[in-house]
Amino acid sequence: MDRIHIPLYKRLYEDIKEKILNKEFKKNTKLESVRGLSNRLGISTTTVEKAYNQLLIEGYVTSLPRSGYIVLDIIEVEQKPNHSNIKPIEYKRFSNNQLTSDLFDVKSYKSIINKVINYDSELLFTECDPRGELELREEIRKYVLIERDVKCDVNQIIIGPGIQYLLHILLSLQKLKSISYLTPEFKKAIDVFRAYDYTLKPRQSINEILRIKADFLFISPSNIYPTGEVLKVKDRTKIIKWAQDNNSYIIEDDYNFFIRYNSYTIPSIYSYDQNGNVIYMGSFSKTIIPSIRISYMILPRKLYELYQSSYQIYAQGASKLEQLSLAYFMKDGLFKRHTKKLYNLYKEKNDIILRELIKYKDKHFFTIKGTDSNLHVVLNFTEQKDMNTFIKNCKRYELHYDEIANTSSIIFPYSGIENSEIPNLIKDLFYSI
Amino acid sequence: MDRIHIPLYKRLYEDIKEKILNKEFKKNTKLESVRGLSNRLGISTTTVEKAYNQLLIEGYVTSLPRSGYIVLDIIEVEQKPNHSNIKPIEYKRFSNNQLTSDLFDVKSYKSIINKVINYDSELLFTECDPRGELELREEIRKYVLIERDVKCDVNQIIIGPGIQYLLHILLSLQKLKSISYLTPEFKKAIDVFRAYDYTLKPRQSINEILRIKADFLFISPSNIYPTGEVLKVKDRTKIIKWAQDNNSYIIEDDYNFFIRYNSYTIPSIYSYDQNGNVIYMGSFSKTIIPSIRISYMILPRKLYELYQSSYQIYAQGASKLEQLSLAYFMKDGLFKRHTKKLYNLYKEKNDIILRELIKYKDKHFFTIKGTDSNLHVVLNFTEQKDMNTFIKNCKRYELHYDEIANTSSIIFPYSGIENSEIPNLIKDLFYSI
Repeated sequence: MDRIHIPLYKRLYEDIKEKILNKEFKKNTKLESVRGLSNRLGISTTTVEKAYNQLLIEGYVTSLPRSGYIVLDIIEVEQKPNHSNIKPIEYKRFSNNQLTSDLFDVKSYKSIINKVINYDSELLFTECDPRGELELREEIRKYVLIERDVKCDVNQIIIGPGIQYLLHILLSLQKLKSISYLTPEFKKAIDVFRAYDYTLKPRQSINEILRIKADFLFISPSNIYPTGEVLKVKDRTKIIKWAQDNNSYIIEDDYNFFIRYNSYTIPSIYSYDQNGNVIYMGSFSKTIIPSIRISYMILPRKLYELYQSSYQIYAQGASKLEQLSLAYFMKDGLFKRHTKKLYNLYKEKNDIILRELIKYKDKHFFTIKGTDSNLHVVLNFTEQKDMNTFIKNCKRYELHYDEIANTSSIIFPYSGIENSEIPNLIKDLFYSI
Repeated sequence: MDRIHIPLYKRLYEDIKEKILNKEFKKNTKLESVRGLSNRLGISTTTVEKAYNQLLIEGYVTSLPRSGYIVLDIIEVEQKPNHSNIKPIEYKRFSNNQLTSDLFDVKSYKSIINKVINYDSELLFTECDPRGELELREEIRKYVLIERDVKCDVNQIIIGPGIQYLLHILLSLQKLKSISYLTPEFKKAIDVFRAYDYTLKPRQSINEILRIKADFLFISPSNIYPTGEVLKVKDRTKIIKWAQDNNSYIIEDDYNFFIRYNSYTIPSIYSYDQNGNVIYMGSFSKTIIPSIRISYMILPRKLYELYQSSYQIYAQGASKLEQLSLAYFMKDGLFKRHTKKLYNLYKEKNDIILRELIKYKDKHFFTIKGTDSNLHVVLNFTEQKDMNTFIKNCKRYELHYDEIANTSSIIFPYSGIENSEIPNLIKDLFYSI
């Protein structure tokens, strides 16, 4: 830094500090009096006082009545940068995992953001309601009522920047100890329970889950990961009964419920629940733009009461600007129009990818699952070598894929691939010499 | 909902579902064939197939080869709303706890938001880097280097929507068990440790802290809550040595470090640390607008390596739009100008409030602490009745205050009071009949 721009008192402070640190001014040395130093250097007494005061506040000197400022014993810590050998993580964004540009209307989003800044700017000056903005919670209440038959009070809705944050709040409300879920697990959620030392009870079927006890059951009944299957009505009533009998909670992650290509959306578990055993969770990340981090949970009465007694401790994490914008977006009907358009674009993409995949199905020995929902397909290979080829090609083209542990199945996302590129890309993925 | 707008297949599905639920169609009943029903109702076979398919997916019927669709045994759950008796929480925003409108320049903020939407809109389509956007981390790296002498690599910086979220990440990295801190505690932070069942070791002085062992020490060395005192140099080197000897971590919450009215900003502990025992935490909430939720932490090497091995599990919670806007704000030098302006406005407000408080000091028996930093003052009453009067008046005027447990001190925030209103307000707060 250019020394000339540093205030005079700070330069003086720095000089004295250095002398103390390099033991030029030893322990118990008396500093020159304010007036003396001021006269000697030809600077104001205020400047000297400010420098001495700074040394006093930081504890380099002490001040004794009638003795002035005395140097204290300082153990110096040698300074060197401590960030050598930091290996950077390269964060890869895989193109097939994103959204193509037709999937979002930047213009209308921009106009809404500006509407908030122009008309609600005073709201941006106040802190956030820990539960999320009332305007947005009210829109969410109407939305889940119409779309998911979820009848709740606006006060039961808690907004947060993603499902992980909401799970942290949920797990802070009371000390429970175990969770069961279907495999393969949804890692982002289950890892939160891991962090809290929960006993994890992964099971392969609902029947197995019904046979054990657990404090929580985490499930996406309308979109079971990763195939997008739905939980049958019979099983839905069974798990509700199970939760009731065991005094357990079902966490219903209603992720992408509206994306069903060949059937009607399945009702929520929450709408079946009579005894307050279901916690409903939803998210806007995949329905607006991936960069918007707004999720919500609806707490049943017992948990709401616990939350109510301690809600001040939870800071709201979601951006208020984006919360208010989303509220406008929903209120003005733009959201409804947007999800409808999005659904049609997703369906078109899904149709194209299935049409292309089917061409290679018999020659490369795989079956396609998860064709009715989501933005990925699940390919189940019968020949290891065909799976290896597919994986090798994904790596070559830097495309994202997930292997499902202990199976020969691969999850392949496609939301980021332009429709026109799908045929050639699929061809390339099955190509082997 | 108006039935006319519901697709035909869905109306058919609803009708059959109702008949199954009210036992008109009993278990094992065979549904009319697709062709038969299609002929009888004069609707297309596709419509009937879609309705039957929906019933099949939801598990109301099963499909047997050559037998068609057979009704399954369904236990109906009676539906009634489960949100009766939800008592709403009234979330109070206290006016003295907010920011006055002169403290933020909405116009320049708006123009930056629009710059991001106009020029970086493609970035809004991709998900967030779990660590936060590189552009912002780079600006933070430069900022903490210049302002706090914190030398770090951009990869050590993790962004999150508030300190609570960052603490969740930190505590997930490894299983530690105990934390010490000075009383009164900063509740929002310590509550996170409570949720993870940490052993809490609150102590009244640094000397007491140095005598015990703990995995973490949470401290704000440049702004000790609530008086804003600073940790003396001697104590700073002592706690660093303590952390080294005990293999502990110091969490340095460098909250509002730049607000010091009568002394120069105190160097960070992180800048003294040689062995990677300090985790540095900072926030932009009080430096931009309260509704912006962006905080950051800088991990020492050991913790960075743990983070690196599992970073994919942490979802980023801070808004990407606001992260990129803040990066521009910092890059263009607007942030530097803004904090300088903010500091002057804060100082002016602090001067006025002190000038007014002093008038009542002798008559009402209190001393003023915390006058050198922060946006609140700490009033220490010597007479209980004067404290009671002050509290009664705070309640009457709906102003926020915090009592410090086991003391006769009150924290009184003033950032939301217009300068011109301060004299009368202070007068009213001390008024008693």
